[in-house]
Parts: sequence; structure tokens; C-alpha cells
Amino acid sequence: MERSFLLRGNVIWSETPRKLAAAPRSYAVCLDGVSMGVFPEIPERYRNLPLLDCGDSLILPGLVDLHLHAPQYHNRALGLDLELLEWLGRVTYPEETRFSDSAYAERAYSDFAQALKQSATTRACIYATVHTEATRRLMELLDETGLCCFVGRVNMDRNAPDNLCEADAETALRETERWIEDTLGRYRNVKPILTPRFLPACSEKLLAGLGALREKYRLPVQSHLSENTGEVAWVKQLAPDSQSYGHAYDRFGLFGGDYPAVMAHCVHSTPEEIDLMERRGVFIAHCPQSNTNLGSGIAPARLYLDRGIPMGLGTDISGGHSLSVFRTAEEAISVSKLRRRLLDDSLRPLTAPEAFYLATKGGGAFFGKAGSFEEGYRFDAVVIDDGRLAAPRELTLSERLEKVLFLSEDRDIRLKYVDGLCVLQQEEAV
Amino acid sequence: MERSFLLRGNVIWSETPRKLAAAPRSYAVCLDGVSMGVFPEIPERYRNLPLLDCGDSLILPGLVDLHLHAPQYHNRALGLDLELLEWLGRVTYPEETRFSDSAYAERAYSDFAQALKQSATTRACIYATVHTEATRRLMELLDETGLCCFVGRVNMDRNAPDNLCEADAETALRETERWIEDTLGRYRNVKPILTPRFLPACSEKLLAGLGALREKYRLPVQSHLSENTGEVAWVKQLAPDSQSYGHAYDRFGLFGGDYPAVMAHCVHSTPEEIDLMERRGVFIAHCPQSNTNLGSGIAPARLYLDRGIPMGLGTDISGGHSLSVFRTAEEAISVSKLRRRLLDDSLRPLTAPEAFYLATKGGGAFFGKAGSFEEGYRFDAVVIDDGRLAAPRELTLSERLEKVLFLSEDRDIRLKYVDGLCVLQQEEAV
Repeated sequence: MERSFLLRGNVIWSETPRKLAAAPRSYAVCLDGVSMGVFPEIPERYRNLPLLDCGDSLILPGLVDLHLHAPQYHNRALGLDLELLEWLGRVTYPEETRFSDSAYAERAYSDFAQALKQSATTRACIYATVHTEATRRLMELLDETGLCCFVGRVNMDRNAPDNLCEADAETALRETERWIEDTLGRYRNVKPILTPRFLPACSEKLLAGLGALREKYRLPVQSHLSENTGEVAWVKQLAPDSQSYGHAYDRFGLFGGDYPAVMAHCVHSTPEEIDLMERRGVFIAHCPQSNTNLGSGIAPARLYLDRGIPMGLGTDISGGHSLSVFRTAEEAISVSKLRRRLLDDSLRPLTAPEAFYLATKGGGAFFGKAGSFEEGYRFDAVVIDDGRLAAPRELTLSERLEKVLFLSEDRDIRLKYVDGLCVLQQEEAV
Repeated sequence: MERSFLLRGNVIWSETPRKLAAAPRSYAVCLDGVSMGVFPEIPERYRNLPLLDCGDSLILPGLVDLHLHAPQYHNRALGLDLELLEWLGRVTYPEETRFSDSAYAERAYSDFAQALKQSATTRACIYATVHTEATRRLMELLDETGLCCFVGRVNMDRNAPDNLCEADAETALRETERWIEDTLGRYRNVKPILTPRFLPACSEKLLAGLGALREKYRLPVQSHLSENTGEVAWVKQLAPDSQSYGHAYDRFGLFGGDYPAVMAHCVHSTPEEIDLMERRGVFIAHCPQSNTNLGSGIAPARLYLDRGIPMGLGTDISGGHSLSVFRTAEEAISVSKLRRRLLDDSLRPLTAPEAFYLATKGGGAFFGKAGSFEEGYRFDAVVIDDGRLAAPRELTLSERLEKVLFLSEDRDIRLKYVDGLCVLQQEEAV
């Protein structure tokens, strides 16, 4: 019965990008970790379940972060006057080299896991570094939090600093397979994901080998795609025969299809690349804060959403500086307005319900049925006390949600559930 | 001696937009509310002053908010899918009509004053509404916080909803003068400022009368300028003889000169308007979060900064949603990157030290010598415990400042001083 109960409160979730569902003072039913739906009164068949009354709090699906780099957690907000390629060399790679030191990794990853636990995020796709031991330790620490995570040992065998560059493709693949064998099925909530860093840092041989590992172990893939104009130009030089940046992954079976792939950014995707993503069912991790910080530009999220391409949000720590997916949702709305004003007035800005959809059900789809309270979804929830944001007049639930997207802080989270297990309970909890 | 003391800690301030000064473990000297400078050791002549050791905390000048609307505090994050003119009609004006109700005003303004007190802001230029009594109450509440504020009773005598539109220019001017007589010199920290809302809402007769009041009472002026393309086009229709939007204020003596004026936004200022601002010493309140939220665009802050036009930051509650000037500084940096990428690559993005300058000394100049610890400046300070943002490696003071700009929250503020008086002391305070 531990994972079977009723939560009472103001329940809000997305049915579609345009359709926000809001049930005031209603009952969300969790049975063995799975949502049975939301009801205005307790259905007869659930009368015996324990009930937790969350008062006037908001009950939202857990947030999903489709793209972030755990070793960059302590680099948040640093070096943000640089663009992508220079920033990698001067800020990102130097920090990642520190993860060969297990004491450093222990401290940094402990801080990261604790911060992620205290955020509204319940599921995430996470990059580690090339260091196998530190990656394994990160997976353990995350598993202890109860959050559901895909974690990737990063592959790089070219165009990377010596101490982060794997000796050659064979070594990289051997070590990656050893890591997969070691971690696949080992944890309750954490799973490995193949992680070629990005095309400029991966030889064709490495990519081909990762494609074979994907088939052998039926693994998902995460990487970067069409983020920055400098990077895109470089990929054109490196893979002159590919019809697009995405095609350069697709040639090796690393671009969706049988097993899901999530590609971060897609700021500068060409029409051919977008068509290919659509055909392969590739997930987009939209990372607006990072794209702004690194001067990459603004991805056409409205276009992707209207085309029905699977999409969620990514904080992209530390291209993005905030670990909060609420802040990412805020930025997704904000930059979509600037994009219309400055770049292309044919694409309407994202609305708050659409950004909320991306933050929950949109990204959740990468994990199966997650990110909603509809029947059959994994029961992931955050209970938010938004009393700090109250007004002298009564606000609608959709107004309260808007305020939470733009103004809530981690300290407003009272409870967090993943798969029906309570993983966080904060002071003044209901 | 109450306002004479030494603060020890990591002191950071701006000398110029490009020159950040950082004094680790040093002594900031306050004598009768005025800064005497920052010293690595206690100078002999100050040996007898009481010393407060702030440990490893950061000591920054208080932040300055050059533009915000107090009655919109509870509207933060609401209606942000609308552009300026529609948003005024559907979100802003309906809220302002509520301030004819003194009970509503009491509650809303109390919340606002409390929130401003708990922020890092020490000085602000604030709009109230057309309601004289509520405006006076706001001034009292702010005076009790110890913050230094200019507060404006708003003038509108055309193109406004009936219940916010003053009967005619004569009535508006009579009531405004009554309010000035009543409040000028009445408070310790709060002063009246003339506040024609924006040109579309003010007749020529009203503007001319306000120009006369400005001379008679030697008052500063605040208003809006060239915010949104729809508004700018409207002003062209309403004031066809003016060479620019700014010139339409200048004709009535409301655009700087002998007494300072601060104009919010300046997103779409023409070269003629910029020349006029420069000649008149008009202050710009740069409000990047608001300009993004309302789809107004991105002001060329780099251009203004390099031209030496006086400029600070404005949260523009509730066009902007965050009351934190740190967040405004973050946005100023962020949007300057998007502006370069999407609009005009000749203007370099703002750096973190430049944004910090705008948030402190840049805006502080509107209040005289404020926003720095240089000798002779008003001693306004915030003591920030940034322990939450620490990393496993040692960060430089300038890195710690970057983190504070992007990631600090109000709860990190331990102490706040205005004119050498402690106005805020929070739990776990040093």
C-alpha cells in the first residue's frame, strides 16, 4: 500500500499542448505508483486508500529535464560572456577534467544530486563526463534520490582536450561497453544512455560502434544538434557527405527509430533535418536559457510543437544557469516573444499552458507514460505551496500556475513523488 | 554614532561600467550615513567605530530600481501573453481601478512595501495610481521601510478607462498640486515625483501644467518613452508636430534639464530622440524583462552606455515579473546577446560588470551620489551570504558576483543598509 494513496488539492495537468486541465480541491489517485486519474469526489473503489490533504496547495506532475550536464553544476552562471565553442574550451572542459579526481567528483556530484532532489524535477536525461568511475558514482547518488534518470558516460575521441579525449574509438567503445554491462539493470531508478557528446568530438568509427551498442543493448541516445552557427559550420566541414547535421548521426543509427533519441537545442535545424526528426520520432530538448546565454539564438519551438515533433525542455546546466525547469518554461515563453518580434512574426509565441505541457507531458514521453495525471501515467507529482504568490483577489488555478512558472522557488515545494514514492518532504509540509 | 560603523567582508562595487572594484576581507567605512571608502586595514582615524564582521559574505552597494508600478505587484506574471496596449486595457488598468478602495490599497501596498523591503533594492522610482489617498498611504508604508523612494501619483486625462481618467486637465493639476503640497518634505525617505503616465494618456494642457508644477516645486519627472511599436505609432498620430516621442515631453519642460527626468524603456528611440536625451541628461530606465514579456523588443543598452547617457535598470513590475534587480541585470545581459545575434551584431553584449554597474551606480546617480562605496556616496549596502552558491573549488570575487546576479534569491540577503541605517536583518544574519 506504500505506493497507493489519494492526494487532495488543486490538481493541474496537461492533456494536450493547448488543453490544460485544472481540478480544484480534487483527488489524485495513485495505485501502486500509477495514476488512476483525478476525481472531484473519492470514487467508491478507492475509499480505503490513505488520504493526504494538501489543503490549498497546487498538485502538478513532476517536471522533466531532457538535457543537462551534471559536472557543470558548479559552473552555473560562470563564463556566460562566451559563445559555445570558446566556452567549451575555457569553462566547460577545464571543469570536466576535474572529474578524474574521485574526491572532487564525490563532492560535486553529491551537491548536484542534492540540488536536483530539492528541485521540482522528477525525471532527467543527464550527461556525466568521460570518466567511468565518476559516472558510476553519479548514477549511485542519483539512484539514492529516488529520481528517474538516464545518465550518460560521455564519448569524445577527437577535437577535445587531451585529458578528456579517449585514446581511440576502440578504447572508447570497449570502456563504454564495460560501463553498460556494469550499470544496465543495476539501479532501481537510473539507467545508462548512449552519449556521443556532439558530432565534432566523435569520429565516424566511434559513432558506428555506438550504433552497434545501441542495437545490442537496446539503449536510448542523447546528443547535441544544430545549436550554434559556428558549430553547424564546423559539422559541415567534418561531415561533408551528410545531408544535414542530424543525418550525420542518422547514418549510424543514432537518430531515433527503434530506440528513442533526444537531441538538445535544434536552434538552426534545416527543413531537411526537421523532416528527418519527424520521420524518426526524435525528441527535441528545447533549452532556451542556454541558447540565450551562449548567444546561439532562439529555436523555433512553435514550429516543432505545431508539427507534432516530440519535445520537452532542458535546463542545459551550465549553458543554462538555473536548475529549475520552471525557469526554463518561463524562458521558453519569453524568447518565443522576442523571436516573433525580431525574427519571424509568422510563429506565434508559446503560451503558459504550452510551456507547462513541454515541462511535463512533452518531456515525460521520453520516459514512457510520464508527466500527467491521466490514467495509466507514472505517478510523479510536486505539491507546491504558492501562498507566497497570493494576491488580495482570488486567482484562478491557471493564473496561479502562471505565477508558479515565473516566480516559484524550490523552497515552495512541499512534497515530491516519483512513481508514487515520496522522495522529498520539506519543512512546513502539509 | 548609530550611522557610523565599519563593515568587514568581501566588498564589491563599480567605479565605471568597465571597472569593477573588489576588495577581499576589507573594511567599508560608514560615517554618519556616508561612505568613507573601503580599506584593507582599519585606518587609524576610524579605530573607534563599531565593527560588524560579515565573515565571508559579499558586501554590495544597494540596488536601484528606476522603474516600477506598485499597484501591479500582485499582477506579476499574469497576462504576459499580451502586448503593451492590449495588456494595459485587460490586465493593468482593471487592477489599478481597485485602488479607489482603501482597504484593497492597504493590503496590496503593504504586501508590496514588505516585498521591496526584503529585496536587495535600496532606492526606487515608483508609480502609484491616480488615487491620491492610496498614493499617500503607499508613501507612508514605504517611508516606514527605510528605503529611499520617489513615488508618483499618476496623471491620465485621456485614452484611459473612465474610472482611472481624471475629469479634465484642470482637475488633474489641482489634485496633483494638493498632493505635492501634502507630501513634499513630509517623509524622511520618500519624495513625490511628477508622473504623467505616458503621452497617449496625457493631454497637452495637462503636460503644460505639469511642466509648470515642475518649475514651481523643483520636482523630478518619470514617464514612459518609445516602448512598443504600437505605442510609438500612436504617439506620432497624437503629436504630429513633435520631432520625436521625447520631444513631445520636452516641449513642456518634462524631459530633463534643470531637474532630472527618468524615462522607462527607450526600445525604439530614434537618433534624434537619443541626441535629445543626451543633451538633456535624461536618465534611461532599462527594463529588459518587461520589454521581453510584452513583446516590445530589446533596447540598445550598449549604445546608450557607450554614449554615456545616464542609465539604470527597472524591474517594471508588472511588465517585468520579478521584483529583483539582480534578475533585471541578468536579463539585461541575456537580451543583449540575443540582440547581437538576431538584430545588430555591431553592438557587443553587456558584460556582468556592466550590468552590475547599471544596477547600482548607474541607477543610483538619479538619487545623487548613491550606488557605490566610493568616498562621499550614501552608505547603501546589501550583505549577501552566497554560501548556497559555493563550489568545490575557490571562486574569485568576480565569479561570486556573477553567480549572485544570476542565481541569488532574497533569502540570501542577510543585512541591508540605507543611508547607513540597517533596514533589514534576516535569520542566520551575521
